[in-house]
Amino acid sequence: MGPGPSNVDPRVTAALAAPIVGHLDPYFLKVMEETMHNLRLVFRTKHHHTIPMSGSGSAGLETIMLNLLEPGDEAVVGTFGYFGERFAEIARRAGATVRVIEAPLGDVIAPERFEQELRRKPAKLVAVVHGETSTGALQPVQELADIAHRHGALMAIDCVATLGGFPVEIDEWGIDAAGSCSQKCIGSPPGLGPVTFGPRAMEAVRARRTRPTTWYFDLSTLFQYWGEAGGAKERVFHHTAPISAIYGFHEALRLVLEEGLEARWTRHRAAHDRFSKGLERLGLTLYTPAAHRMPQLSVINIPPGVDGTRVRRRLLDLGIEIAGGFGPLKDKTWRVGLMGYNARPEPVDRLLGALEQVLRQERD
Amino acid sequence: MGPGPSNVDPRVTAALAAPIVGHLDPYFLKVMEETMHNLRLVFRTKHHHTIPMSGSGSAGLETIMLNLLEPGDEAVVGTFGYFGERFAEIARRAGATVRVIEAPLGDVIAPERFEQELRRKPAKLVAVVHGETSTGALQPVQELADIAHRHGALMAIDCVATLGGFPVEIDEWGIDAAGSCSQKCIGSPPGLGPVTFGPRAMEAVRARRTRPTTWYFDLSTLFQYWGEAGGAKERVFHHTAPISAIYGFHEALRLVLEEGLEARWTRHRAAHDRFSKGLERLGLTLYTPAAHRMPQLSVINIPPGVDGTRVRRRLLDLGIEIAGGFGPLKDKTWRVGLMGYNARPEPVDRLLGALEQVLRQERD
Repeated sequence: MGPGPSNVDPRVTAALAAPIVGHLDPYFLKVMEETMHNLRLVFRTKHHHTIPMSGSGSAGLETIMLNLLEPGDEAVVGTFGYFGERFAEIARRAGATVRVIEAPLGDVIAPERFEQELRRKPAKLVAVVHGETSTGALQPVQELADIAHRHGALMAIDCVATLGGFPVEIDEWGIDAAGSCSQKCIGSPPGLGPVTFGPRAMEAVRARRTRPTTWYFDLSTLFQYWGEAGGAKERVFHHTAPISAIYGFHEALRLVLEEGLEARWTRHRAAHDRFSKGLERLGLTLYTPAAHRMPQLSVINIPPGVDGTRVRRRLLDLGIEIAGGFGPLKDKTWRVGLMGYNARPEPVDRLLGALEQVLRQERD
Repeated sequence: MGPGPSNVDPRVTAALAAPIVGHLDPYFLKVMEETMHNLRLVFRTKHHHTIPMSGSGSAGLETIMLNLLEPGDEAVVGTFGYFGERFAEIARRAGATVRVIEAPLGDVIAPERFEQELRRKPAKLVAVVHGETSTGALQPVQELADIAHRHGALMAIDCVATLGGFPVEIDEWGIDAAGSCSQKCIGSPPGLGPVTFGPRAMEAVRARRTRPTTWYFDLSTLFQYWGEAGGAKERVFHHTAPISAIYGFHEALRLVLEEGLEARWTRHRAAHDRFSKGLERLGLTLYTPAAHRMPQLSVINIPPGVDGTRVRRRLLDLGIEIAGGFGPLKDKTWRVGLMGYNARPEPVDRLLGALEQVLRQERD
């Protein structure tokens, strides 16, 4: 019950164990098509270029930066925690000049600051983390996308912590590129990095002056395998797809859509509310200000005099894993994810009960 | 029964379905340690820096090139098929000047040609494919490593098709960097890229003038998570490891070591011999010259007048998948992998029986 990987639905476990076929097997090609189709529904987009990258969520984010940026390009990246800093660092590795707009931990960034920065000097890309897993803070992104587009920039988001558990509206918000992960609110094991690229982003890919420094994440060849829009053309081998992982992801997407995205968002919200109320009863407070707190991740202040690491170890002895804080919040907070299969009353109550027991031991 | 992914042992399937824990969970850290230890045994190396990369086999090969090469470097890459060309292309993406030594399809490269090329002009890296999956040809690499080292170059190999099914002796041969895959002779699902880096390679990584353009595959930060040599130091999060895939890979390595590498090589050889004899009875011949044919992959000449695609489709209707040829060999050959779990008499006989039946239909 850390911030992902989370437990997965038994149907996902069963899918992982299905017989392995080849990456060009007609059955697998059908699974790929369905995966792309369903992933578009989950991203709320019509973008053709929507696939799970064969790597972790970070691999998807690297795919965005290494394809959209090249040496000589300018990018503006908003950071308010570890994952924002990482997104900026990945952009720097692509050879771009990166201008960072920073907010203090726990906070998010006022849209005006992007407006000012782009007015001062344009950029090719604006990028920001939607839900910051290190602080629990949620950055509204729709207004940022409007600002980026007014200034001729592409808009990219890291929605690793939000997709499947909180509204992510790629088309309505006008997001040009987004990257998420398989193991948080989508509910399959870690190992895939779902991404989506809109027409403006793909236009930028085609207009590159240099080839990407990555062969593995190169979108122009990847989609020769995954299939270009409107093409019944022959598929060209790129790399061997992670068959079993895609089986699991395919089933997880089906579960998301069977439940319905709105119902799923409500369930995540309800689990958070139940958990927050329980924490209050235990005298525990949340680190992230309520104004921009994401429901699927609770960052809890460790009470004075309590050894946060020992509490986590004792919870682990009871079969429950939660995470410690990140970076400067390391010994000051715990992080609890209520994501996917775990965003239900039973896991919430089990954790609250265990936490109560362990905190009593701490105080004894 | 194409050249991978192959069917996996039921024990690997069961491991995939084990409960998911966090990437910093004490149990998972133990799984990581055992995976590194066992992978070293399979690579026949003492290299500390031996891990499964979180991506396909190609991801491991890209890790080699993007970490060992940077703009201004020279590399010599031997190519005798698609995967050699791809290895050279990945090296070019790293910004290196790549000099290619080419041999015709089906052939391999005489060591003297590397000697001549390096005498003409030194290079930082010599790279070659050990077993070329597009042609079935096997390049002896030990002598190449000696030549590379005499000329002050590092030696890297792509052993994607060989590791676990044919001798790969990283330390005895003096290989500085090698990349393989999970889904061929190792016998787990596709999705991991096992790599090993020796001290000379890691020295080159530390001596880089620029940071790698990749954040995801950056060895210097990856081993802060996987653990540096001799260090009981705290692990620093890099990316969320693909837990389930590593469970499967961990179990596959255990199976390899329980069987014993030598016994496994013998089993792959025996399966190939049984298959070759059967093909001969059916009047079929192998494309790859016997002198440098790898046993785990059989490239079969499609007889005149036979529709190769229709034969493969009919085999698929019987539940058996084999692959078509690659590139220029596309409509001229079939490729059959006898790898890992499939390198046994039963699958060989089943395929031979089905092939006989389907070829009879073709001739009717």
